[in-house]
Amino acid sequence: MVTTGAVSSGGAGAPSKGALTPRADDFPRWYQDVVARAELADNGPVRGTMVIRPWGYAIWEHLQAALDQRIKAAGAENAYFPVFIPEAFLKLEAEHVEGFSPELAVVTHGGGKELEEPVVVRPTSETVINHYFAKWVQSHRDLPLLINQWANVVRWELRPRLFLRTSEFLWQEGHTVHATEGDARDYALRILRDVYVDTMTQVAAIPVLTGHKTARERFAGAIRTWTCEGMMGDGKALQMGTSHELGQNFAQAFDIRFSDTDGNLRYPWQTSWGVSTRLIGALIMAHGDDFGLRLPPELAPQQAVVMVARDGEGVQRAAESLVADLTAAGVRVVLDDRTDTGFGRRSVDWELKGVPVRVEVGPRDLAEGTVTMVTRHRREKASVAVGAATAAVVTALGSVADDLRAEAVAFRDARTVDVDDLAGAIDAGASGFARVPWAVVGQEGEQQLAASSLSVRCLQRPDGSLAASDPAGGDVAGGDTG
Amino acid sequence: MVTTGAVSSGGAGAPSKGALTPRADDFPRWYQDVVARAELADNGPVRGTMVIRPWGYAIWEHLQAALDQRIKAAGAENAYFPVFIPEAFLKLEAEHVEGFSPELAVVTHGGGKELEEPVVVRPTSETVINHYFAKWVQSHRDLPLLINQWANVVRWELRPRLFLRTSEFLWQEGHTVHATEGDARDYALRILRDVYVDTMTQVAAIPVLTGHKTARERFAGAIRTWTCEGMMGDGKALQMGTSHELGQNFAQAFDIRFSDTDGNLRYPWQTSWGVSTRLIGALIMAHGDDFGLRLPPELAPQQAVVMVARDGEGVQRAAESLVADLTAAGVRVVLDDRTDTGFGRRSVDWELKGVPVRVEVGPRDLAEGTVTMVTRHRREKASVAVGAATAAVVTALGSVADDLRAEAVAFRDARTVDVDDLAGAIDAGASGFARVPWAVVGQEGEQQLAASSLSVRCLQRPDGSLAASDPAGGDVAGGDTG
Repeated sequence: MVTTGAVSSGGAGAPSKGALTPRADDFPRWYQDVVARAELADNGPVRGTMVIRPWGYAIWEHLQAALDQRIKAAGAENAYFPVFIPEAFLKLEAEHVEGFSPELAVVTHGGGKELEEPVVVRPTSETVINHYFAKWVQSHRDLPLLINQWANVVRWELRPRLFLRTSEFLWQEGHTVHATEGDARDYALRILRDVYVDTMTQVAAIPVLTGHKTARERFAGAIRTWTCEGMMGDGKALQMGTSHELGQNFAQAFDIRFSDTDGNLRYPWQTSWGVSTRLIGALIMAHGDDFGLRLPPELAPQQAVVMVARDGEGVQRAAESLVADLTAAGVRVVLDDRTDTGFGRRSVDWELKGVPVRVEVGPRDLAEGTVTMVTRHRREKASVAVGAATAAVVTALGSVADDLRAEAVAFRDARTVDVDDLAGAIDAGASGFARVPWAVVGQEGEQQLAASSLSVRCLQRPDGSLAASDPAGGDVAGGDTG
Repeated sequence: MVTTGAVSSGGAGAPSKGALTPRADDFPRWYQDVVARAELADNGPVRGTMVIRPWGYAIWEHLQAALDQRIKAAGAENAYFPVFIPEAFLKLEAEHVEGFSPELAVVTHGGGKELEEPVVVRPTSETVINHYFAKWVQSHRDLPLLINQWANVVRWELRPRLFLRTSEFLWQEGHTVHATEGDARDYALRILRDVYVDTMTQVAAIPVLTGHKTARERFAGAIRTWTCEGMMGDGKALQMGTSHELGQNFAQAFDIRFSDTDGNLRYPWQTSWGVSTRLIGALIMAHGDDFGLRLPPELAPQQAVVMVARDGEGVQRAAESLVADLTAAGVRVVLDDRTDTGFGRRSVDWELKGVPVRVEVGPRDLAEGTVTMVTRHRREKASVAVGAATAAVVTALGSVADDLRAEAVAFRDARTVDVDDLAGAIDAGASGFARVPWAVVGQEGEQQLAASSLSVRCLQRPDGSLAASDPAGGDVAGGDTG
């Protein structure tokens, strides 16, 4: 199946300082407002770069932890390769250099002198890593070789949007070497399923469609690109992570060979795969509402905030005691006792930042032995007995991710239609996903979709399973936010 | 007190492929051999850069975890600032640009075009971070502002040595803003003690001297640089981490001002502090022996290896069972059942890699109900009943760090002498540390020491305490490995 949809024009202008722009009025502007007002990120001084502020970075740290644990469970080991790559390396794989040349940052001077050979700042690390794989891989005993790195990469960006498209971003990139094409494909799909889909759906609570990209959309140098596609709050698609089968392209370009069990020298098969700080953009757009971020608890820098609503008899003590109990219960919790700032303003700020549960402790409630608990994602208030508050918060946190995921699934499904021709796809793609047989699209249809600012997001088997072979049936098309 | 010592010339040539070069024969060559043979790192394709291989990177991950936990406990939050800094930013602080200009890498082209203004790859991030601090700091309520980032930095290096001096390295850099000079100094010292000294001595098991640098040696732009100095296995000093008081230099250069409680606009006081992948070099040189690395368990990628010595009745099963028990006991353990490779060669490799405890399971021992346990740091063998092996390994791991630390303290103390003149310092500095009164050294003496390839490592109070004021008494001088 194929997904198409409108390419957003990207937001512009400075974020508003009052309330957030309503999502329905101007989604890109709403996005910018949330990024600024929730103090997630700021534009860097060099065009297209990004400052990730503590609230945004803490979300990234929790994403990293979830991903890193799964990457290690899949057998890959972390390593680190240089940020500088000799320009000549890039040129060894023809498609790769063609794909990345327009986006390169080039260092021409180092240590006060002009360099004899310019070096590029890595846009991705296939070339430098495969240079080393050629040394490390000698025998079938060295395979599979499974390496991952956490790093910054640079791709010069003319239409930057914070988290979604920035000249520098943070990511992980996996690079592996296998004896057979089947092993490589299995591993590329294992990463897609066990690392990416699992983190996106279970941790980030964002449902994703999986499939592979068309030739037009695949990674420069790959023979097949598998992708995870999410639907954002405007009905458009975001590519959230990709896992590539590289075939033997880089092995041949970098002369990586291994002796098989019979002693014959053979080229191995490879994969590479990555997800980036773009996932923070996905979280904002998939779950955010007109009041700001809504965060699944596993990724929330703080899972709960205990607010001293206003000063009064025993209020501070009760709030501190609740913070201690919640901490003991394993909840990441912060105390907000800044009573010199208005209660309303502080509440709005915690909503903006997406803290899943707020507990308000005030003198009047407390006199009656209760506190007020507010869930961020549903904005539901409940009066809870002081002694039952910790258990109530833990219970409330337990259902947030499921609720957010169910909401996102329902939203996506309501905006996904099955169509049987290109006109239907173009019509539906304006506000969501169209599932359309690839047979009626094809490369020519793909160009027509592009003319309507729609793109083929992924090719799927009719039953949605991840297929090694080309899909026999319908595919999905959707809008492109990223 | 001052420490002086010989500056090493740096190693050269390719690592040997047979046994390690003995430390006593050629320490720099031994170092290179260990880095290569233990598969810690490799030279990058661009001069001075470094590939950190999985074994080396896993050590870094454990160091990061130990440091990050302590940094957060000290109240700092992680964030991320761009790798590219406008050249003009560097020039805003006069000493800073003078110090870093010779080491800069400069990007002149991006996205296929020549840039209007060249950008530098960050050598450190004071300038770009303070540009943002000027926006974020408005009121005394915003202080202290405590930020840390984990990042790669680039300082063009003409005499690279893996981990110790590389053109690109990984580090953390903390940047803070305080209302008063006293608050800033207290925080710089808190980081030195509670984060750096604690990690170095308790986790890495390397004793360090603390004190502050002379004007000649301090960070470009700081008013005072506090330092941790370790003695390596050749008797030379390595600067392992620094914490700087920046005074108001950057606040003035970047116009960071806050309104105090009386509403007056004032310049705040700042600190910055960092440790890097150089710490891996310190681990190698402080603890390594002629058989390779010796790792304290908290930093060891694997804390134990269970080796199937050779195939035989029940051996594989017993080894796997032991691995399961050790894992359940919280030990990071790996099974080595590669019996197609000689037992001796595998043992040598695990010694090289510094795995703290080796358990050898062989058919003959097993028939008698025992396995052989070998501690890496003392190379002591013991026969242990199979049923008692897990407890024995856990007990053995429990004393490794203490043993390594005690050894390093004894080594350092044996090579540290008190002298009362420059000639004595020069004599002693050739093989260790000399403690000499700063009054008999001074700036002129410091130049004479430099002529003997010795440097003043740190200024201490006579009682070793961290003094805010200039030291009254003797100081320490030592050799420079870094």
